[in-house]
Amino acid sequence: MTLPNSSAIDGSPDRPVRIGLLGCGTVGQAFVRTISGQGETIARASGRRLEIGPILVRDTSKPRDGIDLRQLTTDPQDVLRDPTVDLIVEVMGGVEPTGTYLRQALQAGLPVVTANKQLLSRHGAELLALAQSSGTELRFEASACAGIPVIKVLRESLLAAEIFAVTGIVNGTTNYILSEMSRGGMSYADALAQAQALGYAEADPSEDVGGADAAAKMAILASIAFHTNVHFDDVPFEGIDGLHGEDFDLAKDLGFVIKLLGVARLVDGGISVRVHPALVPESHRLAAVRGADNAVLLESGTVRQIMLVGPGAGGTETASAVLADVLSILGTAQGSFLQNALADAGRPLLSPDQTESAFYVRLRVVDRPGVLARIATVFANSGLSIRSVIQRGEGDGARLVLVTHMGSEARMNAALDAMRDMEEVRGEPVLLRLLAEEGA
Amino acid sequence: MTLPNSSAIDGSPDRPVRIGLLGCGTVGQAFVRTISGQGETIARASGRRLEIGPILVRDTSKPRDGIDLRQLTTDPQDVLRDPTVDLIVEVMGGVEPTGTYLRQALQAGLPVVTANKQLLSRHGAELLALAQSSGTELRFEASACAGIPVIKVLRESLLAAEIFAVTGIVNGTTNYILSEMSRGGMSYADALAQAQALGYAEADPSEDVGGADAAAKMAILASIAFHTNVHFDDVPFEGIDGLHGEDFDLAKDLGFVIKLLGVARLVDGGISVRVHPALVPESHRLAAVRGADNAVLLESGTVRQIMLVGPGAGGTETASAVLADVLSILGTAQGSFLQNALADAGRPLLSPDQTESAFYVRLRVVDRPGVLARIATVFANSGLSIRSVIQRGEGDGARLVLVTHMGSEARMNAALDAMRDMEEVRGEPVLLRLLAEEGA
Repeated sequence: MTLPNSSAIDGSPDRPVRIGLLGCGTVGQAFVRTISGQGETIARASGRRLEIGPILVRDTSKPRDGIDLRQLTTDPQDVLRDPTVDLIVEVMGGVEPTGTYLRQALQAGLPVVTANKQLLSRHGAELLALAQSSGTELRFEASACAGIPVIKVLRESLLAAEIFAVTGIVNGTTNYILSEMSRGGMSYADALAQAQALGYAEADPSEDVGGADAAAKMAILASIAFHTNVHFDDVPFEGIDGLHGEDFDLAKDLGFVIKLLGVARLVDGGISVRVHPALVPESHRLAAVRGADNAVLLESGTVRQIMLVGPGAGGTETASAVLADVLSILGTAQGSFLQNALADAGRPLLSPDQTESAFYVRLRVVDRPGVLARIATVFANSGLSIRSVIQRGEGDGARLVLVTHMGSEARMNAALDAMRDMEEVRGEPVLLRLLAEEGA
Repeated sequence: MTLPNSSAIDGSPDRPVRIGLLGCGTVGQAFVRTISGQGETIARASGRRLEIGPILVRDTSKPRDGIDLRQLTTDPQDVLRDPTVDLIVEVMGGVEPTGTYLRQALQAGLPVVTANKQLLSRHGAELLALAQSSGTELRFEASACAGIPVIKVLRESLLAAEIFAVTGIVNGTTNYILSEMSRGGMSYADALAQAQALGYAEADPSEDVGGADAAAKMAILASIAFHTNVHFDDVPFEGIDGLHGEDFDLAKDLGFVIKLLGVARLVDGGISVRVHPALVPESHRLAAVRGADNAVLLESGTVRQIMLVGPGAGGTETASAVLADVLSILGTAQGSFLQNALADAGRPLLSPDQTESAFYVRLRVVDRPGVLARIATVFANSGLSIRSVIQRGEGDGARLVLVTHMGSEARMNAALDAMRDMEEVRGEPVLLRLLAEEGA
């Protein structure tokens, strides 16, 4: 078996792949920035360079970082009929006229990547059939849960895994609001206002808090998981705008937290898909998903439960999913991009001595005045700063536990050697490392 | 742009894709069962049927379910040189002679799918380069974390996401043992014995408990995440066999749990990869990963944190990952399999009335003898069984919360209608649903 080696875009891999962009809001601009900032990685991985061609916008006079004003147009045909365009990326949103534009692109054999859940949850099956009959591809990872690659996992990794349930926290705005309401007893109005102030909620939050956004995503996820066309109108939904504070307290008394869940299940060969607030047992893994995060729990006959957790929204996150789709299309066409992805970036391996951690050290010492001071001096001399200490008497000695701030293995080894040399230290000190704090 | 339409396997899509199997232990047999059990789904998704050709085994006389003894051979050349074989699946394990067999297959242009972490973590870069120079593919999802599609996510979805940290619980045996030790204060020896009795640990558990298994997986994950060849020998590792019970107690006092972590980080452009027991803050998402589950936390500049959780071992789980790789290779060759994946399986949509949940109902009632009895009768008459009740006096009335066992929406709606008609009920009852219990 030989893999197809033909680049379907162009005979010459030296020519960049030219992307026609429909829309240039937050996601579009993040996508343009990513293409330019990650150019080297993309080229190494896909064997091709990407470049942004014509861009459809509403207002061509508004300046956008890194974009030449001459690329902007208000005429969709400047993008769709441009013979130099290899691939369409749609981040303008809305059902129409967007659907008309994408149909035209697919009919012309142009691959399309879209982030549009409204469109996909209403016309996905038709657009996919059109892509297939035109011999091209439609990809839409960013249309559900932005940064979480749940669509690729469902479409490719779990294609034959007999999925019987998809349960998701698929709206970050409402999960943020619900987390604040359960945590601090905040009212719905206050939590919403806070979410708006932090940019987690739109000025008009009705799509999110009313449940329609989650319903669109669940229609898309259920369609793929169950290989059946589920339309937005097939998904009954309730939002969180009718929840009362007292139900949070009562749920807590009963051992539950309240989450807005999308629930898609196979029941006796039929499909049930819904979105509603739900009581989730405190010990359940979905209960631990807090803040603006999304999570999708996939239950299957062959792989039991898989959960994917991550950011469900955001400009760079959505742009990253769009880029992954673009690279997958190139990969499909090029065959070998996965090998290129492993091309050596030439990063050096650090010696273990250079690695930094915070450390936990437990040791037994004789119970004698000044021992703790001497141990603390050993740490100080090695340049390690102590975060907490537990000392407890044990017979004629004491057990001493020290937790440090971040420091190198080399410093810690020096401190261990010094302690081994101390006559007050009995036996071998026990060393454990702490998980590095986020961002540390 | 037109996608390649050529099937590189054979001109006729009617001919099944024939798989040569190296090894037929637990994973191999689960793979054969999956191919036969999921034949229809696979055919619909990939447009091709899969069939098992010759199988390399040690003992051809041992009967295996669903396998014709004539397929079995002890001569590797019967598999590698069979001209009817389209693709090699390797589930025999070990570094040699397996590596020699796979080199021969790749040189002959045969795509290879392997679950072999020992081999990949030592010769992965060489084998990938060989696949590329031979114009074929090497896939190895099952070599790290079995059922969790972390390799596809890293190689494809997060290819350009600037990953800077991969932190994982990548060995289920040790996570099971550590979970039992923290939960019940069980000793290491008892927890290990229990893991062995339940099939979570091998008779010789040294690869798992000593950390070598996790180190091999981290070498593979770090290589892909950082686009750099990390060899098994580059990964210092410590296991859990030296841990003391008292450190679990002390860690708990300090607000931590102990996990065996694989930690791969980019530090100042260099790579650090290690495996060691670590103190993880109780509130951290990795602390919540219990039992034999695996979890991988991916941190990146563009998508912040993504976590994937799922089964890290098991025959059907590993076989499912192998099958996903096979389908990805067919998909790459066929171009359009992703559209086929959405071909309508013709499942009916259930009406919302048919959907089952457990329910939470809160209502206000007048404080009068017999009210709870009448409400309970309404539930009973609707065929809904009550799991718990909270009643609390409020002024001249009472607040009543009822939680039911599973029942249909239709039954719940009937009960709500009956309660609305009761003169003792004030205002509109509040209805919430419970997340369905696993397996319910």
